[in-house]
Amino acid sequence: VSELHKTRRELLDNVIGGTEETTTGVIRLRAMAQDGALQFPVIAVNDAMTKHLFDNRYGTGQSTLDGLIRATNILMAGKVFTVVGYGWCGRGIAMRARGAGANVIVTEVDSMRALEAVMEGFRVMPMHEAAPQSDFIVTATGDKNVIDEPHFAIMKDGCVLANSGHFNVEINIPALEALAVHKHQPRAFVDDFELPDGRRIRLLGEGRLVNLAAAEGHPAAVMDMSFANQALCAQYMFAHHATLENKVYPVPTDIDLEIARFKLEAMGIRIDALSAEQTAYLSSWQEGT
Amino acid sequence: VSELHKTRRELLDNVIGGTEETTTGVIRLRAMAQDGALQFPVIAVNDAMTKHLFDNRYGTGQSTLDGLIRATNILMAGKVFTVVGYGWCGRGIAMRARGAGANVIVTEVDSMRALEAVMEGFRVMPMHEAAPQSDFIVTATGDKNVIDEPHFAIMKDGCVLANSGHFNVEINIPALEALAVHKHQPRAFVDDFELPDGRRIRLLGEGRLVNLAAAEGHPAAVMDMSFANQALCAQYMFAHHATLENKVYPVPTDIDLEIARFKLEAMGIRIDALSAEQTAYLSSWQEGT
Amino acid sequence: VSELHKTRRELLDNVIGGTEETTTGVIRLRAMAQDGALQFPVIAVNDAMTKHLFDNRYGTGQSTLDGLIRATNILMAGKVFTVVGYGWCGRGIAMRARGAGANVIVTEVDSMRALEAVMEGFRVMPMHEAAPQSDFIVTATGDKNVIDEPHFAIMKDGCVLANSGHFNVEINIPALEALAVHKHQPRAFVDDFELPDGRRIRLLGEGRLVNLAAAEGHPAAVMDMSFANQALCAQYMFAHHATLENKVYPVPTDIDLEIARFKLEAMGIRIDALSAEQTAYLSSWQEGT
Amino acid sequence: VSELHKTRRELLDNVIGGTEETTTGVIRLRAMAQDGALQFPVIAVNDAMTKHLFDNRYGTGQSTLDGLIRATNILMAGKVFTVVGYGWCGRGIAMRARGAGANVIVTEVDSMRALEAVMEGFRVMPMHEAAPQSDFIVTATGDKNVIDEPHFAIMKDGCVLANSGHFNVEINIPALEALAVHKHQPRAFVDDFELPDGRRIRLLGEGRLVNLAAAEGHPAAVMDMSFANQALCAQYMFAHHATLENKVYPVPTDIDLEIARFKLEAMGIRIDALSAEQTAYLSSWQEGT
Repeated sequence: VSELHKTRRELLDNVIGGTEETTTGVIRLRAMAQDGALQFPVIAVNDAMTKHLFDNRYGTGQSTLDGLIRATNILMAGKVFTVVGYGWCGRGIAMRARGAGANVIVTEVDSMRALEAVMEGFRVMPMHEAAPQSDFIVTATGDKNVIDEPHFAIMKDGCVLANSGHFNVEINIPALEALAVHKHQPRAFVDDFELPDGRRIRLLGEGRLVNLAAAEGHPAAVMDMSFANQALCAQYMFAHHATLENKVYPVPTDIDLEIARFKLEAMGIRIDALSAEQTAYLSSWQEGT
Repeated sequence: VSELHKTRRELLDNVIGGTEETTTGVIRLRAMAQDGALQFPVIAVNDAMTKHLFDNRYGTGQSTLDGLIRATNILMAGKVFTVVGYGWCGRGIAMRARGAGANVIVTEVDSMRALEAVMEGFRVMPMHEAAPQSDFIVTATGDKNVIDEPHFAIMKDGCVLANSGHFNVEINIPALEALAVHKHQPRAFVDDFELPDGRRIRLLGEGRLVNLAAAEGHPAAVMDMSFANQALCAQYMFAHHATLENKVYPVPTDIDLEIARFKLEAMGIRIDALSAEQTAYLSSWQEGT
Repeated sequence: VSELHKTRRELLDNVIGGTEETTTGVIRLRAMAQDGALQFPVIAVNDAMTKHLFDNRYGTGQSTLDGLIRATNILMAGKVFTVVGYGWCGRGIAMRARGAGANVIVTEVDSMRALEAVMEGFRVMPMHEAAPQSDFIVTATGDKNVIDEPHFAIMKDGCVLANSGHFNVEINIPALEALAVHKHQPRAFVDDFELPDGRRIRLLGEGRLVNLAAAEGHPAAVMDMSFANQALCAQYMFAHHATLENKVYPVPTDIDLEIARFKLEAMGIRIDALSAEQTAYLSSWQEGT
Repeated sequence: VSELHKTRRELLDNVIGGTEETTTGVIRLRAMAQDGALQFPVIAVNDAMTKHLFDNRYGTGQSTLDGLIRATNILMAGKVFTVVGYGWCGRGIAMRARGAGANVIVTEVDSMRALEAVMEGFRVMPMHEAAPQSDFIVTATGDKNVIDEPHFAIMKDGCVLANSGHFNVEINIPALEALAVHKHQPRAFVDDFELPDGRRIRLLGEGRLVNLAAAEGHPAAVMDMSFANQALCAQYMFAHHATLENKVYPVPTDIDLEIARFKLEAMGIRIDALSAEQTAYLSSWQEGT
């Protein structure tokens, strides 16, 4: 063990920098930087537009629905489907659940995101109002216990719970285990918890990321952009680490835009370019006022 | 005149700061600041999330479609509808045109925005490919001559042109006037330009903002947030101008979030709040790894 | 008067047949036929697929939203919008209200239609549950008093009522008049009824068809198909009236399909044709089992 | 063998009637009835509204997308997705493909259906125009060779073909086999055909129903209504077969509506009922004119 320990320390001593793929990872690294606990510079790959706008939204959106349907084979049309958290992942899930015919509710703690969800035509309400009417509740908040004991107490019989956000802490599973009088597995990836009053709550993939547990994770066609960010940011870190502090840095805009250009090209899509006159107009203030 | 001139100068001398409502205004003010031409601090009200996420997207979206339908009374279902520019206004227009049954094409010069439009299921292509197949072309770019002579040459007979972006420069109207052999006004706000080959191009509202020209502009329910930003930023400027430079400043986040909270309240919508445990979890990095 | 009366009778005596454009007209003519009161054959133009699938759905859908927005200029995004009746008109209205960003509730009396609405992701509930949460309630049932006194009693302050179905009987306006302590007109086509408890209910266009009262009715691009049905059915009636009874007849399928073909052609849209082999396959039962 | 043959004949001799679940089965049975080849009465369960409006549309829609995603794990967002045939199955597939972010093209041979697809905002064109731009082509026509040799010749490299309609005849697989220079299976349910020019065409599930081949078929929540029709129609056939001819009969309306009522009840959804006054109004013609 001490050998391993030593090796790990030597490895860390030799690290010149890192890159971080996930929203929750970036949140933690920022907290570490703030506490002075970060020991090398990190580029927040997650914050690249070519990462979170696509991977988190379209990748998580599709693969979460995929996971839910593979695990349960329940018809989405006409179901009440609650998305907990309206960040980029939550938006993707809400969009795809609606696209599959569900009636979508959003719960949020951030007033700006809540307002956007309302304007998109989703119902927005606190979880204690959403829980009793939901057929599906899917978490994507990056926080813990967003579905908790008081919610289990009021859920509909047969409600399906899944997590597409962060580890397996978003749903308070120990509390659900403690409440249940009986537990069995009717299908792979589905745990059926029977409560004392006879209601059953179905937890998918043990509360772990349902798109990884019950489906295949993100399609290659969104991971390609995430990995391009990883590769180009690693290269950038190698070239620039000497001048960087032990902080969390954003992905350089040039890298982000280059990946977007390559992606469009790979899809066979061409776009317009600004003429010299148009570029000048945008940066001027003498004309047009 | 010299009196007026003097008064204007005195007024400017007494200005302690400003606030700016529009995307294009902010672009110009930033250009002025960069040229050292800005004579007082300005808060970019347009950049508040409670402004551009709502006013530009949902307000412009609805009111642009309203303007098009009032001016033409054409059935949107089944029409090919090209949106030029996929910023917040363009997104709103694209979303509402699709919601009205149109088949939407997006043209862009920015690869990131183009990629988002593709992922939303819109067709993305250069204007010279979009022009020949469009029944409607609506501009929202903030730039000039984005519809120009080469495009007029290849448009479908009866194509309707409108602008929802910026002044009346987005469509090259002088070029259209020069090409036309005949011009008449079949309905209010519709100018019908007949080209030498017999095709007719219909320009709405003289290329001015079609939601103002042919409809009533944004609904009160989005302007309320924009005006709340104006009021609270004016108050902020009055209190803090002494410490601000002659630059363009963002809306303080506190103001932005407060407006979102008030708006939800006014709509009768309640949301969840983070528990102390959840707040702690988000800012920690020791748990959950 | 007696002269006019006589003329009307002479006219009716000379009628060889009729055609009927509306759903409610056809319902009444069928009732007349059943009572032996129908004095000449009628073709139910409304029942042509090229009529009700398009005019009622896309025409009423667009023009109803147009009427609501012209009358009120209220932002649809985020509003709770109840559609009363999920026939072809109701479907069109629900589809376009959703497309404008509203959260749509459907009320119905027919279980099949209610089930379809559920599967389309709309909320379905009785009117007494929908009324207290609706910002807009729009009727399209062809029946009377579908919004009645008990519903006025529980509506939200500011609720907007409109009719897109049938005459001005779908909303019980006399009952609303009787309840109101004050009535004024804040905008054209909007009557504001103040109830004793201070709530205000806004009735558009005096409860008459809101797309005719406050907008321009259906766009030409759907009426063309309805009128083509009228013209070709009048021609058919002229040619065949001698062999027809005093009943309500459907539009001949040939006429219906011919209009669809012409319409596609007019829109510049080409489609595939069955090969001889494919036609044979469809009518055979020996192959492929 | 002759024993088995005899048993089969005896079984057929004792059949008092049948029920048929599928669109293509009903087409064949009608052809048999027309040829005098049908030996007992059949109820077309497929034609029940509670069957085809739900099973074919929402069931096939969801499970087809499920099959495509399980087989390929390709991101649907931004893909060009062609649906061949806009019957109830095709509508469901088109709706769900759009809901998953794809840009949907419809091909049809029926002008009425083609026109509806246009009005829903889909692009409609002949297959020879759709083939070169499609990432996915899915058949749902009930006919043979709707994707054939001329289409293989012009498809994009990597185009994915699947069938959700009828047996394995909708795609001309023998022709594809004959064209290919190389064939391999990169994933389960995916056959990759390499053409002489290097393009690869991917056929899912050997051209059999992709929702059965690569996914789990329809969810229970739509099959329940189909099976309720089967059960109640079998009971009806048992009670009435003596009075029925060797023809194809529709599902009795009472059975259809009863199933819709039960389904709503099972989903916990209540709806309004007509008052006596409203019922009277609908069947009268004296009032309201």
